[in-house]
Amino acid sequence: MEILKKYQQLVLDNLQSYPAYTPEVKSLYEPAHYALEGGKKIRPILVLMAAEAFGTDSHQALPAALAIETFHNFTLVHDDVMDRSPIRRSRQTVYKKWNTNQAVLTGDAMLLLAFRHLYLLEQDLIPGALDLLTWVGLRVSEGQQLDMEFESRTDITEKEYLTMIELKTAVLLGTALRMGAFVAHAKKDDQKLIYNFGRLLGLAFQIQDDYLDLYADQDVFGKKIGNDIATNKKTYLLIKALELADASTRDTLLSLYTTETTDMEGKIQIVSDIYNRLGIKELTERKITEIYSRAKQALMDIADLGGHWRRVFSDFADYLMKRQK
Amino acid sequence: MEILKKYQQLVLDNLQSYPAYTPEVKSLYEPAHYALEGGKKIRPILVLMAAEAFGTDSHQALPAALAIETFHNFTLVHDDVMDRSPIRRSRQTVYKKWNTNQAVLTGDAMLLLAFRHLYLLEQDLIPGALDLLTWVGLRVSEGQQLDMEFESRTDITEKEYLTMIELKTAVLLGTALRMGAFVAHAKKDDQKLIYNFGRLLGLAFQIQDDYLDLYADQDVFGKKIGNDIATNKKTYLLIKALELADASTRDTLLSLYTTETTDMEGKIQIVSDIYNRLGIKELTERKITEIYSRAKQALMDIADLGGHWRRVFSDFADYLMKRQK
Repeated sequence: MEILKKYQQLVLDNLQSYPAYTPEVKSLYEPAHYALEGGKKIRPILVLMAAEAFGTDSHQALPAALAIETFHNFTLVHDDVMDRSPIRRSRQTVYKKWNTNQAVLTGDAMLLLAFRHLYLLEQDLIPGALDLLTWVGLRVSEGQQLDMEFESRTDITEKEYLTMIELKTAVLLGTALRMGAFVAHAKKDDQKLIYNFGRLLGLAFQIQDDYLDLYADQDVFGKKIGNDIATNKKTYLLIKALELADASTRDTLLSLYTTETTDMEGKIQIVSDIYNRLGIKELTERKITEIYSRAKQALMDIADLGGHWRRVFSDFADYLMKRQK
Repeated sequence: MEILKKYQQLVLDNLQSYPAYTPEVKSLYEPAHYALEGGKKIRPILVLMAAEAFGTDSHQALPAALAIETFHNFTLVHDDVMDRSPIRRSRQTVYKKWNTNQAVLTGDAMLLLAFRHLYLLEQDLIPGALDLLTWVGLRVSEGQQLDMEFESRTDITEKEYLTMIELKTAVLLGTALRMGAFVAHAKKDDQKLIYNFGRLLGLAFQIQDDYLDLYADQDVFGKKIGNDIATNKKTYLLIKALELADASTRDTLLSLYTTETTDMEGKIQIVSDIYNRLGIKELTERKITEIYSRAKQALMDIADLGGHWRRVFSDFADYLMKRQK
């Protein structure tokens, strides 16, 4: 989407200028610099777009956008420590390139830098922005907590799974939009609606992410089909299958997910067959469509949004949902 | 000190009431609750005392006091992860009682809770308080960075060591006092002076901590004499000794600090003898006295501080410096 580029550039031009920095302790900030590189910068772009959509120059929302992006990358640095993930954005993660202690400490500094960015907003905006950032920060931490606990559980309900992805990813997309609307002094009701648009879009996106792992056109998708099955990831597909399966199919699934195997193709095939028998594909498509249309409805309900911006956000939603296929 | 108790009670009564909490994710907050128990609560007491000293009811400064204490305990939870410390306040540390991932994640939530507390201050105080907390948070992170880097170095200068302990501990004591003065709308100059009083007191306290490890009256001290030598800790004493020693004594010291030994008594004796020959005890006493009197001077220079409160802070400084002997 062409319009995103302008905002992305504004973010990239300013993200690495920390408001606080002691030269003799460069080594604390270098991994932060590294962690802030790359990525699509979707969240700060949403802050800036929402601010303009509600009538404020995007530069005024810039500290809030940088705060959101710095916060987001802080969560990635610490999540990679907790998950022992070696690769992100096609490069080594901070904990892998440096070490665990450095990733913990630099992550902490990044969270502090996120709040430092907020301090550069206009004074009367700071309390409300602090409210939004602490609120979303705690919600995202709760999401990570649930995600960690789900790893050792086999009885996760659909509701629990939706709560987890809502907290871990959807609330931040919603809050990014709300932050922009807040800086632009949008009405409270409109702030809530654009938050919900982002939150529901995030939910639909996350479930689609699970869906595409198995049902994407591999040439377009880029990643290997069935990777989530190979790595025993608890996805929406698996949780629905475990919920709908009879006792013996459930046992088959659980044993496939707890036993080591060298025949990955075979494992993916068996799981795939079970999903087909249970109609998981269609059911997931319906769920995505339902949540996605609720997102669009929230967008339509916003009172003070001009037709141009309604279209921009609608196009953005379509772009986000179509880009992986 | 009797006067501290009233403030301590106010802190204890309110510290565990988080302004943000999702019931279904208790497991994220339980380790935070645990980590916030115990300790002397010196820092939040300083916030409350400074607020009253400059003419504001301590209840008004309470959110700032809770923010400082929650921040301080966040650093302890993460420091214990980085140092693999199993014991704190005579109990298992969070990482030991739960696990590393839980300590990282709950620590993150505690840092967010610290900022959440700030949000409960009066609106017009929030920007300045945010400035102070992010500033001190980044300075403390820089101190921990230097501390980690010092572990593998043998050429640390006195200046570097003083910078490290200043950042890691002294600036937070100073900022606690400044936070209280700020909430009470004290003059900028007085804010800086009370900050310096706390900072210098923190420095003197930290060097005295190194000093007492070897030169305390063991019956009163409680801890085993020479523990820092036994655990190869880089202290002010060691750094001064390495600086003043001739080449051969320096080699002896370095080899003692890098070779495993079963004869701990012997090691402590040899190091102790070297310190005696170099006059480390007297030199350290002089340094403590010098910094301590600079702290007292800063206190005397504060313009808008009544005689009563000047005495309270002076007594507090004496209490802090004498309590370990």
